[in-house]
Amino acid sequence: MASPREIARRQSVRQFEIQRVGVGADSAASVDTDIVATEEPLEIRLAYSGPDGSGRAEQSISITMRTPGNDDELAVGFLFTEGIIARYDDVVSVAPCGPPAENGLINVVRVELADDVGVDLDRLERHFYTSSSCGVCGKASIEAVAVQGRFDLHADATRVARTVLATLPEKLMSAQSVFAETGGLHASGIFDSHGELLAVREDVGRHNALDKLVGSRLKSGALPLTGLGIVLSGRASFELMQKAMVAGCPIIAAVGAPSSLAVELAAEFGMTLVGFLKSDRFNAYARPDRIV
Amino acid sequence: MASPREIARRQSVRQFEIQRVGVGADSAASVDTDIVATEEPLEIRLAYSGPDGSGRAEQSISITMRTPGNDDELAVGFLFTEGIIARYDDVVSVAPCGPPAENGLINVVRVELADDVGVDLDRLERHFYTSSSCGVCGKASIEAVAVQGRFDLHADATRVARTVLATLPEKLMSAQSVFAETGGLHASGIFDSHGELLAVREDVGRHNALDKLVGSRLKSGALPLTGLGIVLSGRASFELMQKAMVAGCPIIAAVGAPSSLAVELAAEFGMTLVGFLKSDRFNAYARPDRIV
Repeated sequence: MASPREIARRQSVRQFEIQRVGVGADSAASVDTDIVATEEPLEIRLAYSGPDGSGRAEQSISITMRTPGNDDELAVGFLFTEGIIARYDDVVSVAPCGPPAENGLINVVRVELADDVGVDLDRLERHFYTSSSCGVCGKASIEAVAVQGRFDLHADATRVARTVLATLPEKLMSAQSVFAETGGLHASGIFDSHGELLAVREDVGRHNALDKLVGSRLKSGALPLTGLGIVLSGRASFELMQKAMVAGCPIIAAVGAPSSLAVELAAEFGMTLVGFLKSDRFNAYARPDRIV
Repeated sequence: MASPREIARRQSVRQFEIQRVGVGADSAASVDTDIVATEEPLEIRLAYSGPDGSGRAEQSISITMRTPGNDDELAVGFLFTEGIIARYDDVVSVAPCGPPAENGLINVVRVELADDVGVDLDRLERHFYTSSSCGVCGKASIEAVAVQGRFDLHADATRVARTVLATLPEKLMSAQSVFAETGGLHASGIFDSHGELLAVREDVGRHNALDKLVGSRLKSGALPLTGLGIVLSGRASFELMQKAMVAGCPIIAAVGAPSSLAVELAAEFGMTLVGFLKSDRFNAYARPDRIV
């Protein structure tokens, strides 16, 4: 009988018959099979107490295209990084919600919150990109994160050696089981100051990979990420920086490029932001003093 | 005075002071400036006639993090690929909606629709990932696209030489003005069977880059994309394939990997899907008969 880990691995990839095509004069097309990263919708349903003691409510709050596996971590990580819950104790239960779809996957996860959790679903409407001072703008988006943020990172005393940072891309790729087969998945990993990867999560969506990672730490009571860093396989966007900030992470190292708003968010909240991370060099976009 | 094109270019990047850090024994950190792709929110506001003759309504229907530039194309492309409008004649006007934010950008675009356009905003709620036959699943997502799709691609007779496909990654990168500076932008381009790039759009969000591209064609009355193809700088996901399908494009060529649902959608609708496109080889995941 297959182990849960093996079942998860099988669900995360699919096989297709493809043509491999060479372009040179002597090349030809050959039929082969290829392994592709699975992308399927996941619906997150939330059961909670309505405002003003209006009784229990249940509703679908998100549908995201994700790679199956660690759905419980994805759900609670999403709720936490989006500011719907503040701690894992807010969650009474999180479980797949059957029946399975035709392909055997359960693509609904149900999260039940404790009675005393005040739920503000307006957060998910993302009206918070607007402020009265500057209208719709990046600055308002950052101010909204400040309201949400729980951990002050400015004074965080974490230090990491540049030689340690340089080892992370190879370690992340080695840890990416599915990427090795498909080349199609984003990954996020948590590393310590010795460069050890403590956890890695993968997904077709980079925000999902990070939500899974944060969710795994939330479940084990291991937030904030004081003294640790997050390495990203791709680019650093506003959304990823927001999630990392809410998780209390002082150092973000991205293999790809950062966006302007990612740099501005890092500077505003005292986070160290590294981009274009390679084995022999990188750029530090904010708070380089943590790199020794 | 700067040209509109020059102003757009300036808005699409920002300069930051960074540290460039080398990791070898002799390396040191040096302070430098770096150009980063701009990421700012864009709100799309829709003015339309309410259902049952209930008068005009106006509401915010989307906020996306995008790179400024071609906001009008992004707005109408989004409305078209998400099924809110069926043709450019549905649009009475599309214009920036002031005042500018503190940073000088106008981050709101207002689209006014004709009186006779029936607007179904439930589409944007994405409940359509669910069907009664299989619950929440990829198959239901594809069926929903079938309802939305307007162009039958199965019989499309477009052909493209494999040697033409192989030239596209380099051409796309050459055409990416901002990417050359920042490394931070996704790009989408339309190519013809001779390998000529007819249009290229860039954005920090890959769905935005494709919406801008489709929007530009919609504005000029040049849809569907019969006889043409779309090249993507990154991976091919369900969402990108959906947008390409709605635009009537028979051939999608991605520099990155496809997801399982991207392959399944291509097969379902008779679209040719190429992945891992390089100068000397690629994989064909669906309808390889169009590649000669």
